[in-house]
Amino acid sequence: MNEESSLHKESTSINDTMEEEVEERDPESNPLNEPLLKRNRTLSSNPLALVGAKVSYIESLDYEINENDLFKQDWRSRSRTQVLQYIFWKWTLAFLVGLLTGVIATLINLAVENIAGYKLLAVVKYIQKERYLMGFLYFAGLNFILTFVAAILCVCFAPTAAGPGIPEIKAYLNGVDTPNMYGATTLFVKIIGSIGAVSAGLDLGKEGPLAKEALTITESSGDGFGISTTIVTDAISSPVVLLQGAPVGGVLFALEEVATWWRSALLWRTFFSTAVVVVVLRATIELCHEGKCGLFGEGGLIMYDVSNVTVRYNAMDAIPVVIIGVLGGVLGSLYNYLLHKVLRVYNLINQKGKMYKLLLSLSVALFTSICQYGLPFLAKCTPCDPSFPDICPTNGRSGNFKQFNCPDGHYNDLATLLLTTNDDAVRNIFSTNTPLEYQPSSILIFFALYCILGLITFGIAVPSGLFLPIILMGSGYGRLLGILMGPLTNIDQGLFAVLGAASLMAGSMRMTVSVCVIFLELTNNLLLLPITMIVLLIAKTVGDSFNPSIYEIILHLKGLPFMDANPEPWMRNLTVGELVDVKPAVVSFKGIEKVANIVNALRNTTHNGFPVMDDGVVPPTGVANEATELHGIILRAHLIQVLKKKWFLKERRRTEEWEVREKFTWVELAEREGNIEDVAVTKEEMDMFVDLHPLTNTTPFTVLESMSVAKAMVLFRQVGLRHMLVVPKYQGSGVSPVIGILTRQDLLAYNILTVFPHLAKSKRK
Amino acid sequence: MNEESSLHKESTSINDTMEEEVEERDPESNPLNEPLLKRNRTLSSNPLALVGAKVSYIESLDYEINENDLFKQDWRSRSRTQVLQYIFWKWTLAFLVGLLTGVIATLINLAVENIAGYKLLAVVKYIQKERYLMGFLYFAGLNFILTFVAAILCVCFAPTAAGPGIPEIKAYLNGVDTPNMYGATTLFVKIIGSIGAVSAGLDLGKEGPLAKEALTITESSGDGFGISTTIVTDAISSPVVLLQGAPVGGVLFALEEVATWWRSALLWRTFFSTAVVVVVLRATIELCHEGKCGLFGEGGLIMYDVSNVTVRYNAMDAIPVVIIGVLGGVLGSLYNYLLHKVLRVYNLINQKGKMYKLLLSLSVALFTSICQYGLPFLAKCTPCDPSFPDICPTNGRSGNFKQFNCPDGHYNDLATLLLTTNDDAVRNIFSTNTPLEYQPSSILIFFALYCILGLITFGIAVPSGLFLPIILMGSGYGRLLGILMGPLTNIDQGLFAVLGAASLMAGSMRMTVSVCVIFLELTNNLLLLPITMIVLLIAKTVGDSFNPSIYEIILHLKGLPFMDANPEPWMRNLTVGELVDVKPAVVSFKGIEKVANIVNALRNTTHNGFPVMDDGVVPPTGVANEATELHGIILRAHLIQVLKKKWFLKERRRTEEWEVREKFTWVELAEREGNIEDVAVTKEEMDMFVDLHPLTNTTPFTVLESMSVAKAMVLFRQVGLRHMLVVPKYQGSGVSPVIGILTRQDLLAYNILTVFPHLAKSKRK
Repeated sequence: MNEESSLHKESTSINDTMEEEVEERDPESNPLNEPLLKRNRTLSSNPLALVGAKVSYIESLDYEINENDLFKQDWRSRSRTQVLQYIFWKWTLAFLVGLLTGVIATLINLAVENIAGYKLLAVVKYIQKERYLMGFLYFAGLNFILTFVAAILCVCFAPTAAGPGIPEIKAYLNGVDTPNMYGATTLFVKIIGSIGAVSAGLDLGKEGPLAKEALTITESSGDGFGISTTIVTDAISSPVVLLQGAPVGGVLFALEEVATWWRSALLWRTFFSTAVVVVVLRATIELCHEGKCGLFGEGGLIMYDVSNVTVRYNAMDAIPVVIIGVLGGVLGSLYNYLLHKVLRVYNLINQKGKMYKLLLSLSVALFTSICQYGLPFLAKCTPCDPSFPDICPTNGRSGNFKQFNCPDGHYNDLATLLLTTNDDAVRNIFSTNTPLEYQPSSILIFFALYCILGLITFGIAVPSGLFLPIILMGSGYGRLLGILMGPLTNIDQGLFAVLGAASLMAGSMRMTVSVCVIFLELTNNLLLLPITMIVLLIAKTVGDSFNPSIYEIILHLKGLPFMDANPEPWMRNLTVGELVDVKPAVVSFKGIEKVANIVNALRNTTHNGFPVMDDGVVPPTGVANEATELHGIILRAHLIQVLKKKWFLKERRRTEEWEVREKFTWVELAEREGNIEDVAVTKEEMDMFVDLHPLTNTTPFTVLESMSVAKAMVLFRQVGLRHMLVVPKYQGSGVSPVIGILTRQDLLAYNILTVFPHLAKSKRK
Repeated sequence: MNEESSLHKESTSINDTMEEEVEERDPESNPLNEPLLKRNRTLSSNPLALVGAKVSYIESLDYEINENDLFKQDWRSRSRTQVLQYIFWKWTLAFLVGLLTGVIATLINLAVENIAGYKLLAVVKYIQKERYLMGFLYFAGLNFILTFVAAILCVCFAPTAAGPGIPEIKAYLNGVDTPNMYGATTLFVKIIGSIGAVSAGLDLGKEGPLAKEALTITESSGDGFGISTTIVTDAISSPVVLLQGAPVGGVLFALEEVATWWRSALLWRTFFSTAVVVVVLRATIELCHEGKCGLFGEGGLIMYDVSNVTVRYNAMDAIPVVIIGVLGGVLGSLYNYLLHKVLRVYNLINQKGKMYKLLLSLSVALFTSICQYGLPFLAKCTPCDPSFPDICPTNGRSGNFKQFNCPDGHYNDLATLLLTTNDDAVRNIFSTNTPLEYQPSSILIFFALYCILGLITFGIAVPSGLFLPIILMGSGYGRLLGILMGPLTNIDQGLFAVLGAASLMAGSMRMTVSVCVIFLELTNNLLLLPITMIVLLIAKTVGDSFNPSIYEIILHLKGLPFMDANPEPWMRNLTVGELVDVKPAVVSFKGIEKVANIVNALRNTTHNGFPVMDDGVVPPTGVANEATELHGIILRAHLIQVLKKKWFLKERRRTEEWEVREKFTWVELAEREGNIEDVAVTKEEMDMFVDLHPLTNTTPFTVLESMSVAKAMVLFRQVGLRHMLVVPKYQGSGVSPVIGILTRQDLLAYNILTVFPHLAKSKRK
């Protein structure tokens, strides 16, 4: 989407001067103790938000079907073949999304495993020759270069590609259009950036990038065929989260965390996409088993198989399970709190310019390299258990007993965890039936390191995901607890690590069902289910009592106007009429309007929707002789189309159906491009007329002015609106049929409280 | 709920004479080629539906919050403690539901396994002594008695307990109140009936009863504490489907199939309930492993463990997978079609009286017994594979190689499948690594028998579920296909059976994600996932091209006014104004109304909601001097409360806040009991006044008359309405602020098409 065009949309500002205010003040300056973007103390605040690492102007999406005459004609004239074509196309799209996501996922995995693998093999060789400094220089240097590539791409070419992308997708599906998120450049940067960042050993996962890629593919292919956003959103929403090997969990994650509306059909198409992805992944893994993929080919669909463990637990095991749950909740909310602070600080640094962004990323990479390489020297060498003669010690890329700096027959347990890829680290710490493998001190160092890395890595300007850092941290304290509880329980330490990871996910992201299914799929052990469920429930409950989920925190921080599912309690005490009163008067048009009026309205306001009314109409039934008729609402985009096409009439008359059909097609009206500044209207044309009736959406959603904000918000969100008309509860001559229009920004709790601060007092947390 | 009270509710009939018509004609007479309940050719048809096996009057639930003054006062006065108490209670409720569901599930399992087990052991003893006739008499006689107990309970004490209950629950959550569904008697009959019917070896599952029990528990406990339906629904919705051992699948089933609205909070509480159930089940199984539960104790959480099978498949295996998928779709839709016909015939039989119902059930039981006992004699004896010396032949209750009438060292493969409990039959046919165990002819007989039984058993008057019959049928043709494809593929026959069962479920019930997760949990083998997904997708797609899902067919058959998620395409061509025009004029009240008017309106109409308007009001702003104000909508139940409490005023005045608080509490208004016929109003009282303002819901949802029915339906369903006010698009003196009220029945496609038959022509299937 053209950036200029979005600059002036949807900023329903209280007065015209406010607009200038927005332009004048630097949107990138803000102190530490306010949301990243300062908001005006008006009801409808400015439409700025952080998309990726870029400050962008955002607008609302229109999920509502715009039922104007043209749409109805178009709809009636559609043949059965066209309908079938359309359905076929939707499914093809779902298939393509699945296919491409699968291919890209494989590509990233392949590249990461090979780059990181050869890197680690080379480092191991230096260490074997005891050339530790050279090893370090090689390790750190390569990581530095990889990070540099990832960061420079993100900073210079696609700032929206930075970060996890999931908050943006969540907002998008909630109805917020985030420009520049989806496009070929962003996709490319995402892929290369992910490969670079993950192979550099940074503490981040790759599920975020994958999510965004899936969305990007759909978005770009969708636009090309003139299919409106509604359908696109539909088709996608979620092959989206494909933690490799957790397809059902991914679908559920999309449902639980990402999707705002939910329908059987959506579930069904999402599931189809996911099935395609799984098949693609399986096929490539099958291929790689034959050794054609370099170092890749170890991981199957199941990432951490603990199905070989006999799970037997009794009532006494409830104690460690409860402890893990509580710890997960406390640490999860603490992590949310600290990450919030770190992101604020990072934002201040990032705003200073591109060079600062780059430097920040590179320092984090350097710090990570130093720790991963240096810390293992602190660990004592452990003699190998003679019962594992084949696998201990290992010097290869992966393996549970890394020799590192130890003499033969010994291994360095910290190197096993640190000097490896993130996936392998998880696999190693989840390893079962190895109760004596790790020393408590090593696990402690591992845990502490990943707590620090988890906090400082997330905000840097590379594509990143939150799943892996949280799993690493969680498995750390889980395993530590397992070692401490060892004498008291017969739950395996590997299971403790799994439970720890699950508890931290629930404590930080506050998901339950999807985390449960994801872990079920990752571990392939159903008998873990009951204790996993209990751990998740406790962790989420404990976490919820401290702060909101990490995604909600990030959404708020980025200023994305996300609409919550449940209205705040104080919203029951406020009517939409009161909200409308603090907004500027609504600008409306007559059914047949003078061009000059339209041009003025478009130039002087930033509204995106205008009610269309006819005066002096005689209702077909009833006693009134003269009444005002509310015809509907017309969109700015359509008005601009009218002006561009110079669809003017010399006299004040209604147009015929054929005239409309001749000039406009439904596809043209679906376009949102165009800006009033680009439209030139001559002086003569200014005195001409436009018949707005055919382009007016005659079925807008309305609420009475006495409606409570709580209910209005539920309606707005459930139906996916962009504009909601407020109609008077009074009926009489002289009363205007529309007393105001509410938009997404007007219904956000944060914005309302700036105007009605007294409501906050009655606010219950 | 009192049945009389519901007789006159919600039947918004076109004219008063129609009401008599409804009373006159026998609701239980109908020919074979119409829906089970004849509908009048009016917009709002009569509110009759089949609940269980009983014709009942139904009404809509009110999910909307009734925001009147009293509610607002009550809400404001609620202390923090009360809010916490409320939250605590909601969670306690979820816990209790989980606990009780778990206990009841265990109870049913325990009873079934023991009754059926001892029955089979005794039969086997007779057979070993070659006293075949005695064996048959014993077998058939016991089954007859068990069925008799189940059927007599259902027929005489709780006709609503018959059938699966899932369609009724689906309708309930969609907003249809189904009386007599939930109560102690029904619950008791459900439990005993399930035990009887399942141990009698009838071809039905027990998940339906369990579902209803969970709902019943919540409903009854909820009412006792004055918690409104909204919250109850919330708390439950779905511990609901606990196919034992598939907790996550159960939650998903509830989401995919049952729940109309879906929220994160709902998912979260449902998940909690399910976790409790799983823990209860696990604990009792743990106890039973110690041998304290008689013959029960074999099954763990995992029902059919196929995790020991190494799943390796290649591209060639796509062929059988596609065949199974297509077969599942075709057979599933065929099953839906035939079951529909059978249910119609059964309905005709059942309507003849209780004796017929009972006879039908008993004949089905007798037929089942004859087939299960007699058919194994047709099978040839197979010599035991010497590699299974311990388990072949078996004479115990369960086991894969039943000796039956065979000499030592031989087994009867058909007896293994038929002369056992349904659960064991599934376990036996799913058994893996036994490629030579079953002869194709035996599987064919098994499949044919269960096709017949699956069709004739479902509609009889006992509590029943659809899952098990479908799994049995599906596994039959799956395994058969496995035997036929044996030389061509290396997929195990047991897996073929699993895939067959999955495909038939998808083909008949049209669920995908939940079936997938259920099978994942039942089989505990993740590597099956990709092929399961493909099979499900194909089966659902094929099935969808023939007819709707079995639940939709049953809902329609029962006449439950279920609102679909997606409006029909032709609904875009109709406005709500046109709908309102064919309804009788709306009956409205003044803000301060004469008692006589209220009594008359309540007696002469069956409306449940009345708009409240004030004439001659001067709006606070605007140019109008005199306007009509739409104050809101008042419910019949509240008006009856007013009349019962004789809350009358001598003069026409507004009441004070304290007067209202003195007389009404919020809890009283939540009650829906009471009937206008029971209210006695004296002649003097008739001339007094009532101030309706404090009891009026001031925030009703409204739509403009120009709104399309498609959009109005989406609004109605998404927000969970009972009444939707239609307001005029004209604004002028003399125009009434409300031109009509739409209810659930008015928005159902079937009802609209009876009034606007021409729309059906443009209908696209």
